[in-house]
Amino acid sequence: MSTPKIRVGIIGAGNVGSALVQLLIDESRSIALVDAAMAELEIVGVAVRDAEKSRPGIDESLLSGDAMALAHRDDLDVLVELAGGVDPARSYVEAALSRGVSVVTANKALMASCGTELAQLANKNGVDLFYEAAVGGGIPILRSLRTSLAGERIERVMGIVNGTTNYILSKMTTEGSDYDVALAEAQALGYAEADPTADVEAFDAAAKVQILSSLAFGTELHGEEIAREGITGIRAVDVDFARRNGYVIKLVGIAERVGDNGLSRRAHPALIPAEHPLASVHGAMNAVFIEGTMSGPLMWLGQGAGGAPTATAVLGDLLYVARNRVNGRHDVPFSVDDRLVSVPAGDIESVFYISLDVMDEPGVLASVAGVFGAHGVSIQSMEQSGVGDEARISFLTHTALTKNVEATIRELKSLGAVDSVGACLPVIEQGAS
Amino acid sequence: MSTPKIRVGIIGAGNVGSALVQLLIDESRSIALVDAAMAELEIVGVAVRDAEKSRPGIDESLLSGDAMALAHRDDLDVLVELAGGVDPARSYVEAALSRGVSVVTANKALMASCGTELAQLANKNGVDLFYEAAVGGGIPILRSLRTSLAGERIERVMGIVNGTTNYILSKMTTEGSDYDVALAEAQALGYAEADPTADVEAFDAAAKVQILSSLAFGTELHGEEIAREGITGIRAVDVDFARRNGYVIKLVGIAERVGDNGLSRRAHPALIPAEHPLASVHGAMNAVFIEGTMSGPLMWLGQGAGGAPTATAVLGDLLYVARNRVNGRHDVPFSVDDRLVSVPAGDIESVFYISLDVMDEPGVLASVAGVFGAHGVSIQSMEQSGVGDEARISFLTHTALTKNVEATIRELKSLGAVDSVGACLPVIEQGAS
Repeated sequence: MSTPKIRVGIIGAGNVGSALVQLLIDESRSIALVDAAMAELEIVGVAVRDAEKSRPGIDESLLSGDAMALAHRDDLDVLVELAGGVDPARSYVEAALSRGVSVVTANKALMASCGTELAQLANKNGVDLFYEAAVGGGIPILRSLRTSLAGERIERVMGIVNGTTNYILSKMTTEGSDYDVALAEAQALGYAEADPTADVEAFDAAAKVQILSSLAFGTELHGEEIAREGITGIRAVDVDFARRNGYVIKLVGIAERVGDNGLSRRAHPALIPAEHPLASVHGAMNAVFIEGTMSGPLMWLGQGAGGAPTATAVLGDLLYVARNRVNGRHDVPFSVDDRLVSVPAGDIESVFYISLDVMDEPGVLASVAGVFGAHGVSIQSMEQSGVGDEARISFLTHTALTKNVEATIRELKSLGAVDSVGACLPVIEQGAS
Repeated sequence: MSTPKIRVGIIGAGNVGSALVQLLIDESRSIALVDAAMAELEIVGVAVRDAEKSRPGIDESLLSGDAMALAHRDDLDVLVELAGGVDPARSYVEAALSRGVSVVTANKALMASCGTELAQLANKNGVDLFYEAAVGGGIPILRSLRTSLAGERIERVMGIVNGTTNYILSKMTTEGSDYDVALAEAQALGYAEADPTADVEAFDAAAKVQILSSLAFGTELHGEEIAREGITGIRAVDVDFARRNGYVIKLVGIAERVGDNGLSRRAHPALIPAEHPLASVHGAMNAVFIEGTMSGPLMWLGQGAGGAPTATAVLGDLLYVARNRVNGRHDVPFSVDDRLVSVPAGDIESVFYISLDVMDEPGVLASVAGVFGAHGVSIQSMEQSGVGDEARISFLTHTALTKNVEATIRELKSLGAVDSVGACLPVIEQGAS
């Protein structure tokens, strides 16, 4: 029996794209790949923004500058979309899917903004749409959610899914650096972009939470905004308070059931107990922690970015698509759970860490404590530190409703004795582990 | 279109079997399961050792005492084998496979002893054989190796795959307990069997290493013996030495490439750097750490035992089998890499921790050091401690060949100044993480 051929078009030859090409043309892997794909994977074209630029390792005859023409090729089985961003990537993906071409993408922004529509389009045309590389780089978490955990009732998904912010917060933790110093270092090392907004303001983490949530809980992907807070306000004193109290500060993306049919999705910095498995995820590593009703806690750890790790996730999808095509089948897209209702961030209960810069004068604590009390937020522990301009009061609350804490913060800001609110961060409680 | 039925027979209704039955008959999951299986999963029989015993939650009409009759039923689509042990489990599995019935098993002993033959039998009969629950309880590592990582070149798989020994070693680490005390506690809590041999002598870990290796590297499963050492000789002083030097002692199962076409498989206690992700795997948790050429380090963490977590792994397999059967297909079994040659344990290079109980008299260190030197084992650091009967010398060597270290130990044992060799444990070096 002759080995079937699966013809692959690739849009984008940056870090991920060129690592993928190297994987696919590596002679020493070719037998293993044919085995895993049940087919020979043949690259028929690589579309790049600048077709004149030399691309070592990529056959020149494959290169073109016209991504849309590649997406429309008649002889294509799979389109690998690595262009990034919503437009024009969306038009390439739609063109391919509607012509019966399967798509593998690493594009989290695209999936978060219109993943449901694209998945339906794929299904209608009897082809696959996979995007393992969109969350957690090389960590194969999405396929596990689709397959091994398909029968599990998941209670909570919590992830460190942004390597840039984890690198910055890790530096602040191990070296006591301030945010600006750690950011500059991350930029110098190439871990952070010149404009770091998407990472440090948690847009990236929020998109990944939505993708995880769609597979774990059956929520839709329509570009909905979810609660989001960045790390730019985190100070060295906050990191230090956390450490002294047995916590580390991490930017976490969370999707969790609330009550019978509620679901909360959010991305924000939080205090995590030092013994929690996520607390030891250092530097640019990513991790996804899942709590299932029956499985208990499960965690996946790996490199969340980088050309080679991300390319392995793309390759895993490509092999899966190839086997499906050879078998004349495709996977059903994630199912949607209509009963789930989005719970506003204000309705979430949590312990909070709150730090206030205050006037260094008698009676301040009493007036501050009065504001907490008036909003029904009860205090678990308190610490006064610094003198003069540096005077600070830091609190850990008991479990409280977020909206009550927010109301407390608003009133504290208007209090004469409070210079500013330095931090207000939720505290993640230790799950079983 | 009517929903197809997949008829499931289950052998064994212990912790895992009864948790699985509960999952399958749970009304609140039924829609999600039909969705994930693309079929209705119907339990047609549950074979137990003692059919007279009351089994709350299992319909009495399903129970029987005849496992072989269940395996031979004409109306079966999938047999779930949870009996454990090689015989008679093997005969049930063979009977099912050879009659075109797919098999899901949690049986590591069976898979390690004849997995290759059973996989070939499954393939010949066009059915699936899956065994996710045989390694790492609820951790879905095997499917990730089969699918997402099928195109990756894996360099090393290293796992904490035995919860009993990890519980004992964790207790020894956190509480400074001796082995016997920690074992007794593990037995009292049900983490260790009355006869703990399979766990503490690393038979269980060795079987799991062989299963991981077969999927990661393409080695065969024929019940071959691999290098194996237990934890019964580990003393509180060893755990303490490790801690003071930045390590923890863990029982690890390792399968790794050596040179061009060599492969080493072994299970033994080792010193792991405290910063290594495996070092923070506490208590009865399991974890598998993989180093891939392109993916870099990846780790999976979860509950390695227990009825409910293990049942979720079985259910994941069952859903996969169901979808395959509905689509009229089956997965190809793991491929075999004939070029790989097993590397003897003696040929592995490592840093070693060695601890000697010695006579408390002058000149001992000189004579001991002479023996190391004679075998080409060079010393990285040395510590003398205790006096009189408690006198001890502990060493960390530089990287040395295991067989040279073994020869050193043999000669040291015959040295008058050495009372006994307390420990000789490899040290795992910190990988990228």
